[in-house]
Amino acid sequence: MDYFKESLYLHQYLKGKIRMTPKMDVRSKEDLSLVYSPGVAEPCRAIAADPEKVYDYTIKSNTVAIVSDGSAVLGLGNIGPHAAIPVMEGKAMLFKRFANIDAFPICLDTQDTEKIIETVKLIAPVFGGINLEDISAPRSFEIEQRLQDIGIPVFHDDQHGTAIVVLAGLINAAKLVGKSLFDLKVVINGAGAAGVAIAKLLKCVDHQNSSECIAVREVIMCDSKGILHSGRDNLNSSKQEVLTFTNPNNRTGSVKDAIVDADVFIGVSVGNLLTTADIKTMAKDSIIFALANPDPEIMPEDAYKGGAAIVGTGRSDLPNQVNNVLGFPGIFRGALDARAKRITPAMKLAAAYAIADFIPNPTRESIIPASLQEQVAWKVADAVKEAALK
Amino acid sequence: MDYFKESLYLHQYLKGKIRMTPKMDVRSKEDLSLVYSPGVAEPCRAIAADPEKVYDYTIKSNTVAIVSDGSAVLGLGNIGPHAAIPVMEGKAMLFKRFANIDAFPICLDTQDTEKIIETVKLIAPVFGGINLEDISAPRSFEIEQRLQDIGIPVFHDDQHGTAIVVLAGLINAAKLVGKSLFDLKVVINGAGAAGVAIAKLLKCVDHQNSSECIAVREVIMCDSKGILHSGRDNLNSSKQEVLTFTNPNNRTGSVKDAIVDADVFIGVSVGNLLTTADIKTMAKDSIIFALANPDPEIMPEDAYKGGAAIVGTGRSDLPNQVNNVLGFPGIFRGALDARAKRITPAMKLAAAYAIADFIPNPTRESIIPASLQEQVAWKVADAVKEAALK
Repeated sequence: MDYFKESLYLHQYLKGKIRMTPKMDVRSKEDLSLVYSPGVAEPCRAIAADPEKVYDYTIKSNTVAIVSDGSAVLGLGNIGPHAAIPVMEGKAMLFKRFANIDAFPICLDTQDTEKIIETVKLIAPVFGGINLEDISAPRSFEIEQRLQDIGIPVFHDDQHGTAIVVLAGLINAAKLVGKSLFDLKVVINGAGAAGVAIAKLLKCVDHQNSSECIAVREVIMCDSKGILHSGRDNLNSSKQEVLTFTNPNNRTGSVKDAIVDADVFIGVSVGNLLTTADIKTMAKDSIIFALANPDPEIMPEDAYKGGAAIVGTGRSDLPNQVNNVLGFPGIFRGALDARAKRITPAMKLAAAYAIADFIPNPTRESIIPASLQEQVAWKVADAVKEAALK
Repeated sequence: MDYFKESLYLHQYLKGKIRMTPKMDVRSKEDLSLVYSPGVAEPCRAIAADPEKVYDYTIKSNTVAIVSDGSAVLGLGNIGPHAAIPVMEGKAMLFKRFANIDAFPICLDTQDTEKIIETVKLIAPVFGGINLEDISAPRSFEIEQRLQDIGIPVFHDDQHGTAIVVLAGLINAAKLVGKSLFDLKVVINGAGAAGVAIAKLLKCVDHQNSSECIAVREVIMCDSKGILHSGRDNLNSSKQEVLTFTNPNNRTGSVKDAIVDADVFIGVSVGNLLTTADIKTMAKDSIIFALANPDPEIMPEDAYKGGAAIVGTGRSDLPNQVNNVLGFPGIFRGALDARAKRITPAMKLAAAYAIADFIPNPTRESIIPASLQEQVAWKVADAVKEAALK
């Protein structure tokens, strides 16, 4: 099937992919008097008297805003808020499909950090959570960080969603090859939203209580100019921060230099970057996550020829797809059900382990659950809710 | 039925009255590839290349934001954005029920005029129209006026919705008593959002082309301190503007002085204001719209005893209910279908005549259609669309 052509047709046919549906019909004067004036005054008064009641009498307890400025949409780049809407509608469908959450797209006609932060604060009353989506780094880091105290969870899925699913895959891959997480040397190529979040999660950077998190031995982060090291000029603030907890031996060189003797390669960068010969320089039983789309950094068959033990990609037509849909629906479901005020590192970790635990006996072709297995979200939701309430 | 008690129970049971529904199921990998990655990139690219395509490929063409700051909710006053949500959800149900429009509540955590204006501009990409709701005067006037050029219709229903339905009722009432609109002397009591909009509509103030609009002979506006006249101190800007086209003989006194010899009394104020004796001072066959809720300015039976020919109220249990639901669904339907960039005075007038025309043979008990007659919205939509395209 030509997905592009058929998708365009489908979008035109449906004129958008979501709709608003009343939970009850309004047929009679009595119905009208209950859902609207005069009866509606009573829940209004109840909420005015006790603001927490907004969770009992309105859609807030089950409603998430998907907020984007259209600055980093899929692989399409900065296409703006209007062109981003089809992606946000699709995301809303996934929220519903996997976690029965009512999500609504909010595409903002600004790419100014301060204005985005302010607008999210101002529209927050109706929403029980905010999913930031397709906002370019490093603005997205600051926006998410500065919205952590608004009283509802704010979660940038491009960062943490990918990081959580990668960690889940890595847990099972390490188990399969008989290595411990804390022995792993990991190279990450791509220092955007996902790459930085993966590095932080693997090094337990945001965990106050380090006993709850197993950090890998070493992470080396690369961008398009090679390894991040202390001699690099003009590193932006997020890359400078990454440098504080990566590359402890201050190695220099290209990504190909970085992966020599590494146990794990995680690519969130560009296609066709590595060759079979490159993989041969890695440690025995190497683990590869080649997540560039549509062309991975290296195709699984080429990685296997180089000695890789396990390969995951971002593609739905290959085994071990790293797909955020395994994470965000259950994470928000758990956070909403716990009425969590933010999504903590412990909740992210719980999500990663719940995804990993979904596969009790991992194999080379199955370290990550299939994207459409809906029970994954239920398990993730339970684990996240438990972590939130702890 | 105790509507307050039952409504509270209903709201708790439903946990909010609306939900988001996907227009198609996502069951298979193929579905996922069509509604989301990779296929969704194609409509994104198409919109990026031609911004007008956002109306073809997204929910924009059928989606309206119901924006409130919770500053003037029903008769409850300034209860804030959280407590306002049940009303906005109810309004969304009515948009769906009567015009198949997908409306979504946006309750803003600010009552600052500039911030409200900016936020509406920033969230506009997803929406085909903005319904401002329950924002207190005079801020609501400025907010609506300054949002007229954002490229989608922005309509403050508390102003124009009521004004349009009152004009519809007045057209039929005047026909019934054999008076011409341009002979009428009208007294309006209440200088808030609705009162000011009624005065403007009856005097054709916003109509560039006066030939398209029949103005009544004279309007006298009263607030809680009596008639607006040139000797009054401390009139706010909207009352000063009203003074420029009302009270041509600069009369002074109370509302009871104002209605002497008047043909029409329109109350958007407080209950139990007038008596049978007051109505007796009005012109023969007087027309009364006593719209205060739940207690009208005068009960119909008392007005009839004083010589009134026709009485309308805001109550659903009495004849001739002036209910905004006769207006806004069809008005937005027509505006969306015409892809109008704003709702013009001609479109408002077309809506009023469509509502009036719905009753070809008005009687004392029936000058206004019943609120639940859904064909009204269809007629209004057609008339508004035609006026928009003209």
